[in-house]
Amino acid sequence: MDLSTVQIPVERVAHSKRSEVDFNHLPFGKVVTDHMFICTFRDGSWQDPRVVPYQPISLDPSAKVFHYGQTIFEGMKAYKDTEGKVWLFRPEDNQRRLNISAKRLAIPEVPKEIFMEGLKTLLKTDQDWIPTAPGSSLYIRPFVFASGKGFHASPADEYTFIIACSPSGPYFSGKVSVRIEETYSRAADGGVGFAKAGGNYAGQFYPTQLAMADGFQQVVWTDDHHHEFIEEAGAMNIFVRIGNTLLTSPTSDRILDGVTRKSILQLAEDEGIPTEVRKIRVRELVEASQNGTLKELFGAGTAAVVSPISSFGYQGKRYELPDLENSYASQFRKRITDIQYNRAKDPFGWRFPVE
Amino acid sequence: MDLSTVQIPVERVAHSKRSEVDFNHLPFGKVVTDHMFICTFRDGSWQDPRVVPYQPISLDPSAKVFHYGQTIFEGMKAYKDTEGKVWLFRPEDNQRRLNISAKRLAIPEVPKEIFMEGLKTLLKTDQDWIPTAPGSSLYIRPFVFASGKGFHASPADEYTFIIACSPSGPYFSGKVSVRIEETYSRAADGGVGFAKAGGNYAGQFYPTQLAMADGFQQVVWTDDHHHEFIEEAGAMNIFVRIGNTLLTSPTSDRILDGVTRKSILQLAEDEGIPTEVRKIRVRELVEASQNGTLKELFGAGTAAVVSPISSFGYQGKRYELPDLENSYASQFRKRITDIQYNRAKDPFGWRFPVE
Repeated sequence: MDLSTVQIPVERVAHSKRSEVDFNHLPFGKVVTDHMFICTFRDGSWQDPRVVPYQPISLDPSAKVFHYGQTIFEGMKAYKDTEGKVWLFRPEDNQRRLNISAKRLAIPEVPKEIFMEGLKTLLKTDQDWIPTAPGSSLYIRPFVFASGKGFHASPADEYTFIIACSPSGPYFSGKVSVRIEETYSRAADGGVGFAKAGGNYAGQFYPTQLAMADGFQQVVWTDDHHHEFIEEAGAMNIFVRIGNTLLTSPTSDRILDGVTRKSILQLAEDEGIPTEVRKIRVRELVEASQNGTLKELFGAGTAAVVSPISSFGYQGKRYELPDLENSYASQFRKRITDIQYNRAKDPFGWRFPVE
Repeated sequence: MDLSTVQIPVERVAHSKRSEVDFNHLPFGKVVTDHMFICTFRDGSWQDPRVVPYQPISLDPSAKVFHYGQTIFEGMKAYKDTEGKVWLFRPEDNQRRLNISAKRLAIPEVPKEIFMEGLKTLLKTDQDWIPTAPGSSLYIRPFVFASGKGFHASPADEYTFIIACSPSGPYFSGKVSVRIEETYSRAADGGVGFAKAGGNYAGQFYPTQLAMADGFQQVVWTDDHHHEFIEEAGAMNIFVRIGNTLLTSPTSDRILDGVTRKSILQLAEDEGIPTEVRKIRVRELVEASQNGTLKELFGAGTAAVVSPISSFGYQGKRYELPDLENSYASQFRKRITDIQYNRAKDPFGWRFPVE
């Protein structure tokens, strides 16, 4: 396949399901659009990229994704501005990161041309599905999984790359309260924590259920050695504001290099907010809460955007965060969404037109 | 469903594929039998257990297994003795362990009755597929995966439990050489290393590819803190013989509690072999190799049975193991397979008749 001239054929649905959807009350990630992009890796190359009606996938029971969790994904969003123009936010960063994940999971990398042309063709096909109600957007889920067969614990010989889209409302409903984890862990040094690998998420579900049973919505993961440093929250990176200083953990082979995370760091620099990217001790958080210098805690991610955290739990105690006017979280949220929805200038070149 | 009287209906294939298979030259895990067992968790309970023709699975692209790696499995084998009787090896241990994995991965546990009756019904249906050539057996793969839909990173509301079977030859062909890992890691403290979770395997593929490029077949994983202690090999637990003492690492939340591993420990006790279950330093292995006391290194697992290791690599050096007559590995392999194939007495009650 000549990648410089990749053309994506489109097979359209006979009847759109769009009229069945209430676009003013969208859940997160449950409604899907009419079409999906699909491409198959077989005989050593990615083949047959196309947009087809959204449809079930048929797989052999020995497909390796079922047994060895060989699967990676990305999370992105498309936004429609008041003139009906469609925008993405830093999509090439997602494309690059998908291939960083692919390499670590022994999955063949997806050529940039296939990713970008497939994405654009799908978005143009389903552009009427992009919601415009406040706080809603089209959540985009590119994913690659091992569709090749066999019970031997080794990489597959066939992979499937799909992009699906879901018109979605907010990821969190209501206030977000987190528990700082003291028992379970998300990632190992030298492991796959930096990748958007399926297995990273499955391993978080049980500890998150335990936290939810105690009234929290998310877990803030800590290092697996001594649970001494905060890392990330699985669905989002974590930011801390102590006094007027913004802190976040450095990325590593345990922590995802979030697109929203790095956008916030750049906005903070742009606005002259003092920032420290360094390991953050749980102890430091607790002490700052106790002496009144802990002003904010918030999560940042594509799905969660910027989500203020109202309290955190640690060693059986709950620490409340103050309810600030004009918080960093609300400032960053406004600046990022204004760029995403084309309501403000984009000095960093983050907005990407779909045309 | 009344579990005490669970009946498994069987839908048979119209035409068996059995005559197409060369039972004297079986690969590992590539050939599948005519039927499979399937059962679905939905609306809060496991439903509709049945044996059906082996067939593709149809899933929504948003099925959570594709995104969050929420999947677990077991590995078992069925053996046919010279009189045509069919045996399993400690199957209730696999059933128990599947549910230990299930709990950690937030997957609903499979009732013992469904697991055991489903397994027995399937094996009776496909008993003509159990190979009898030396070194071959019917590899059995029970697995449970999240078939429920949605892009929200949370546990699914539907799961599928399948048992598939593959008449198989040996897992390894030829000598096995391992590399002791110094960079990558398999498991975190507080993670899912003790579970047979899909994600544990996907994360091993890339480091294993790197090792294979350097002439090794498997990686021996070490702790993620300092790569100081040997843990397990992903597809098998690791045993070391220094002098006449047998050593293996203790199980933990990082190391799988292997059925073959614990069977070997019991055989060693039975035979009066001095045994130490304790953390083993890589340094100790290297020193024992250098001073000539390192006699054996072998892997143990259902697929690999007992696999002698001919050399190990560490810090760019390769250490050869001696080629012993009457090695522990060969003794254990003989004792275990003699019990499995009903060629010897079974003092421990490990053999389980399928009838």
